[in-house]
This record gives sequence, structure tokens and C-alpha cells, in this order.
Amino acid sequence: MSAGLSPSAPLSPDEGTAGMIARRQALLGASYRLFYDRPVHLVRGENVWLFDADGRRYLDAYNNVPCVGHAHPRVVEAVARQMATLNTHTRYLHGTILDYTERLLATYPSEFGHVMYTCTGSEAVDLALRIARHETGGTGVVITRNAYHGTTAVTAGLSPLLGPAVPLGRDVWTVPAPDGRPDAGETFASDIRAAFADMRRHGVRPAAFLADSIFSTDGTRPGPVGFLKAAIDAVHAENALYIADEVQPGFGRTGTHMWGFARHGIVPDMAVMGKPMGNGLPIAGVALRPEVAERFGREVRYFNTFGANTVSIAAATAVLDVIEEEGILGRATASGEHLLQGLHLLSQRFAEIGDIRGAGLYIGVELVRDGEPDAARAKQIVNRMREDGVLIGASGPADNVLKIRPPLTFSQGHADLLLDTLASALQAGS
Amino acid sequence: MSAGLSPSAPLSPDEGTAGMIARRQALLGASYRLFYDRPVHLVRGENVWLFDADGRRYLDAYNNVPCVGHAHPRVVEAVARQMATLNTHTRYLHGTILDYTERLLATYPSEFGHVMYTCTGSEAVDLALRIARHETGGTGVVITRNAYHGTTAVTAGLSPLLGPAVPLGRDVWTVPAPDGRPDAGETFASDIRAAFADMRRHGVRPAAFLADSIFSTDGTRPGPVGFLKAAIDAVHAENALYIADEVQPGFGRTGTHMWGFARHGIVPDMAVMGKPMGNGLPIAGVALRPEVAERFGREVRYFNTFGANTVSIAAATAVLDVIEEEGILGRATASGEHLLQGLHLLSQRFAEIGDIRGAGLYIGVELVRDGEPDAARAKQIVNRMREDGVLIGASGPADNVLKIRPPLTFSQGHADLLLDTLASALQAGS
Repeated sequence: MSAGLSPSAPLSPDEGTAGMIARRQALLGASYRLFYDRPVHLVRGENVWLFDADGRRYLDAYNNVPCVGHAHPRVVEAVARQMATLNTHTRYLHGTILDYTERLLATYPSEFGHVMYTCTGSEAVDLALRIARHETGGTGVVITRNAYHGTTAVTAGLSPLLGPAVPLGRDVWTVPAPDGRPDAGETFASDIRAAFADMRRHGVRPAAFLADSIFSTDGTRPGPVGFLKAAIDAVHAENALYIADEVQPGFGRTGTHMWGFARHGIVPDMAVMGKPMGNGLPIAGVALRPEVAERFGREVRYFNTFGANTVSIAAATAVLDVIEEEGILGRATASGEHLLQGLHLLSQRFAEIGDIRGAGLYIGVELVRDGEPDAARAKQIVNRMREDGVLIGASGPADNVLKIRPPLTFSQGHADLLLDTLASALQAGS
Repeated sequence: MSAGLSPSAPLSPDEGTAGMIARRQALLGASYRLFYDRPVHLVRGENVWLFDADGRRYLDAYNNVPCVGHAHPRVVEAVARQMATLNTHTRYLHGTILDYTERLLATYPSEFGHVMYTCTGSEAVDLALRIARHETGGTGVVITRNAYHGTTAVTAGLSPLLGPAVPLGRDVWTVPAPDGRPDAGETFASDIRAAFADMRRHGVRPAAFLADSIFSTDGTRPGPVGFLKAAIDAVHAENALYIADEVQPGFGRTGTHMWGFARHGIVPDMAVMGKPMGNGLPIAGVALRPEVAERFGREVRYFNTFGANTVSIAAATAVLDVIEEEGILGRATASGEHLLQGLHLLSQRFAEIGDIRGAGLYIGVELVRDGEPDAARAKQIVNRMREDGVLIGASGPADNVLKIRPPLTFSQGHADLLLDTLASALQAGS
């Protein structure tokens, strides 16, 4: 279980929320988990701020879905207008999906040519894999050791993060995520080659390599620029497809580039988009090189009832407008650098801060004790910061990495507030 | 390919839409198909009416998603209000999901106790199957021969409708859908028993039986009331779970009952909901008996980023409000009966009308020639009615069943317009 997650029965609910938690357990069942020892009851959001039922304000430094900020008026208005006009599906002609797809593809390398739409990142990974298996005739997939790629049966089987009760797929091989050593790129490529070789030794034909370029759940490992080049060559040498899971790094999260893979100058075969695409409206998709879906397109029809319906496209269009007009990538780059600098300064004061890694506004901060991962301390810091009005999470294979991933409208001033609150939490001791 | 679907390159696009179709093929790829030989370019919807770019009005007798009518003001307002307030996920506490879940469960038999939320029907079927496999320890699933259950890898493997290029899962057995004979219920149960026996003979342990109680894609076969009782007994005798796919029959589609299975007085183990749940907002889910998710809940955490986010719940709540306050079930029952009567009268005039089957506002009309299914004629009628301003589809294993499935606000007057238009199309000859 991730350090930021409480079990379904939290440890110390306050009086006001205890009844709500009990109702929730009764109605939704035990699979539903809450954040924080004292879960937050939210009622309103505005830009980087969330407000609870008592009117208390929280700085949201966790949620990547509202990438242009909670309740951005441009998105709210676009959705309201389209809802009142027409909400229908892709088996009728509609102009906005075409305009949006052209704009979206313009943010991709020129090799990309199609977008296929789903409602969720899970569905998009699932579809990308269906296409990869159909095109290659193979089934085998290589992923990283603590990856998370979704919640459908197949994508949960590509998600070791979910723990031992969720079996990996029989055709799934794992490799360690790249670490921070200078030869990390070569080691990673070599591990991928070895995994494909073992796969073939078991009579399984390769279909795809699937990874998120910042290795979010592997502890946030953005790696040095360009270090994925050897990996993609290793994948292509097997005639397998390289699927970039951009659900986390996509839409400017890493600051300098719209897509995480672009930081490394590689061109994958498919890219999967999700969470921030509609600022909270359920839209996701697969962008791809047309040639990799040629046989699939001819032989398999694809329809997703709500996928890219007219309302979701209105939301996604407004998100692209805001990203462009408000200079979101530049702002995220600047805020992210400011935050990283502040974290490095903090690490000089607090020995328990280990490695600090990040790109743009996806930042991981290791907590260590005697050189070992300290999950208990990470959990304590996350909960203390929640009490002090700043929402972050924790993740990583050892659950000791503070996960900082705010809306991209997060400013340097917001970063300073986060740094002060983190410093207090560290100062308070364990 | 279903008779209502055109290949990606339609036969006779008119000048105004040809450019749009070409852009669409270039941007979305060949897997995307359009309805009708001359696809419709829609720009506005209101209750049962859709309007194209030239201002032409169409009676929508096909779309089940906008169950309370296109752009229902109650839903539009609820979504706009919630979008401007807060759109977030289920790892924070929020009251409306609890209120909604209580109301939703009140429409189910008392044995049901939890709802788990997804964004799409595909995800919901996929989750139900994950739970069934986890709980039973089995993997085998029995479905009907022309079923459609979704578009994820696993649910596409439960969807023979998608054609031979999409392989069924290795653990999937099919049975014929029940036909109209008096002993259809017993025959169906006996086929299910035989499928499970063959499954066990191959060393595969049963997990679930999965069917939609009106067998939509098997040609619309609502069957006599109560005829599924023998089937559910056969499933339970195998210690397998009975999953009712309510994506089509649910939310009052069959008129007399909120859920299709309730027409038959059976209590499944899980029910999967989808399309009409949010009148077009992507929300879907699994309602279940708590005991069937006990081990899953303990061992597997479940999170779906957009599933039951606060905006989707606002839409779903407004849909329940309208269903109750506008007496939607009663209206759908009355309109459906009126339409069925009219169709039976038409069948006395036109020998090419074969069997007519329906429950509530899900109606199938067979077209036959010399006693054989006539898919070409069904396609012709569907396209002619589109030209005459009424939108329906066609489906069934032989693609010869006109599929009439309008918003549930469809009135007897709307039904009369549909009947007149159908009569003209039949009159015009082939």
C-alpha cells in the first residue's frame, strides 16, 4: 500500500467525518481507500486551492488531473455550453473532434498521425496493447518493476504496484526502473534485451515495451535527458512496439516539453494520454504512428460510447487553449525549478532528505534513515502536511518518496508555502 | 459488420460532408466507423430531436445514452454547477456520492449492498469479471453467441459481435441466445449447463455467466417474463457468479422495471450499469451483493481516477431525479406498447416484417424474405429512414433486425411519426 493511502478504516477520524466514513465503507465496500489518517472532506476547488466542509483551505500539491487549476472558468464554460447544445458520440460527424485532433497531433512528432479516444488512461493503455498485439502477432510485454498502468483486467496485470493479490499477466516480464547511475540508460536497455530474450526462451513472442518516461510509481525517476534512446533501440530490435505511457508526464507535466518522451528526443510508436487531458472530464486516448494501426484499423472496428463525445472534446479543447494562452509549460518549468532549488536547500538542513528527483512539476523527495528508505517517516510527513493545509502524497517501491505533483498553475509563491510547510513538518521531528 | 454501420469509406457522401469524412479518416484512422451511407453531421440536440448542420431535424429513435432526452436542462444545470464548484475523486470524502449510492441501491433488490464506479460500461464489465475471478478462483465465462460486452482487451474477448478478427478469450464459452420457443428458458439453462461441463472437461474452472437480459446484440430477445430463472439456477449450481449486463436494459429501458433482470424476478450476484447512467457524462458501475466482493475488497484496492468524480455524480443524480419526477418508466412503458402495437399493425400490411420483439423502449423488428433474414433490406430501410428524418439502426446475428431504442422521453406521438416513416420506407419497395 502506498504511504499516502490509509486502510479503508482510518486510524483517527475526527468526529465530523466518522459517520461519513462509515457510510462510505458500507456503500462502496472495502476496495475503496482514502487519503490521510484523517481523510479530507472537500466541497470546493479553485485553481490550486481546495476547501473542506469547515471552510478550511488546502494548497493542492498532489492533483495532476486539474492541470490548468480546479474549476478553471474556461473549462467550466466550455463544458456548460456544449452540454446545453449537444452531447453525442463519434458515429455521427462532428467538427470539433477533428479540429481538436489536428491541434493535439501538432504537439507530437511528425511521425504521429492518428488519435483514438477512450474515457480513461486504463482504457487507453488497454487499447494500445490490443493494437500492439494485433499488429505484431506477439503477446509479450515488458514493464518496470513497480509500474502502474491501469485498472482493467489486462492493465492491472501490468501494474505490480497493486501488490501480490493482483497477479501480473502471464505474458508480462518486468525490469528494474533506471536508477541514478551514469550508465543507467545502457543498463536499462540491457535489462530490456534480457527480458525479451527470456520471453522468447519461454516461447512468448514480444508485442510491446510499456513505460512512463518519468517512472512515477517507481519512485519518480526522470533520468538524464536522452537516456531512453538505448531502450527504444532495444525494443525495436525485437520488432516490438514502444508504448509511452504519458498519463503522468503528458500535457506539460515535465515542464519543458508537452510530452515526457520528447525530453529524451525519442519517437515512440504509440503514446497513451489520460488524466489532465480534460481537466477532470473523462477523456483519454492513444496517439500513434498510422502504420502501427494499419491492420487493426482494417480488421477491427473501434467504438467507445463516451470516448471523445462532444462534451469531453469541448473540455479538452479548452485545456489546450489555456495551456497555450497562459504559457503553462513555461510556468510549470519555472515553478518546478524553484521548488527543486528550495528542496535542495532543505536537504542541507535535514539529513533525512535523501535523493531529490524531478522534472517540471513532478517531483519526488526520498526520506531515509541510516541510508535506508523510511516509509513511516514519509507517511508521517504527508499526514502532518495535510494537518498544516498542504496536500501531497507518497509513493515509490519502498513507499518513502514524497510525491509532489500540483496543478501546473502552481506558482513560485505556492512552492514557497509548500517548502515552509515541509520544513515545519521535518522540524517537528518524528 | 452491423447493418447500420457503414465502412470507413462510405458509399455516397454528399458534397457537404465529404471533406469532413476525409479529415476524419486521416485523423482518427480506419477503426472509426460512421452510421449511414450518408453520415449525419449533427450540431444540436433537444429531447428526442437532433439537428444537423443544415438545420434539418431528426427524430432520434436510436440513442439510449440520453435516456432523459438530449440536453435535459436539469442535467445541464447540475453539471455546470458542479463543474464550477469542485471536480475531484473518491480518495477524498464527498457527500453526494454517498447520497447517490443510497438512492441507486434502493432501486435494486435488498440483497445488493455496494456500488463500485467506473467511467464506461466496458470498464464495469471488466471490473465485475476481475471480482468474479478473484472470488471464485475460476476463470471460465459463459456468454451468448452474438454478445457484445465492451471494448477493453478482456471485454472485447467477450464480444463475438466484433467479428472474427477479435479473438474470444481462451476461457470463454458461448451458448445460443434464447429463441422464442415455449421451452426457451429450459433450453437456455441446459445449454449453459453443457457449456460449464465442457469448460470443466478442459480443466477450466467456472467464474461467471454474463448476459444482458434483453440479449440486445443477439437480435433483441426480451423473452417471456421469468424465463431466466432456470439459467441463474444453472449458474449457481456451478458455484459461478451470475453477472447481469444492464448497460442496455438498465435505468428503465424495458419500461416496467428499473433493471432488466427484475422483469424475470431473479437476483443476480452483480449488475453492470453504463450508458444512460449520466445521460452522456461518462459514469458507469457495478452493483453487487457485498459477499461476492468480500475477499476482493480485503485484498485489492480499487481506484478509478474519473470514476464517480463529483461532476459525474451530479449528472447521475439529476438523471435519477428526472426518472422519478417525470415518471419516465411509466412513459416508456406506454410509448413502447403503443409502438409495438403499431408495428404489429404494419406487419399485417408488409409481409417482409418478420418477428417483432421488445420490452419497453428496446424494440427489434426482423426483416425477412422467403422466411430468411434480409440484412440488405434492413440496411436499406435504416438508410431511407435517415433520409426521411428518423434515426434508427440495425443489428442481430444476421444483421436483419431493425433496432429501435430512443430516449425514454419518446412519446406516443413520436412513435406515430416513426411508424409513418417506417411505413413509407417499406412502401417504397426495395
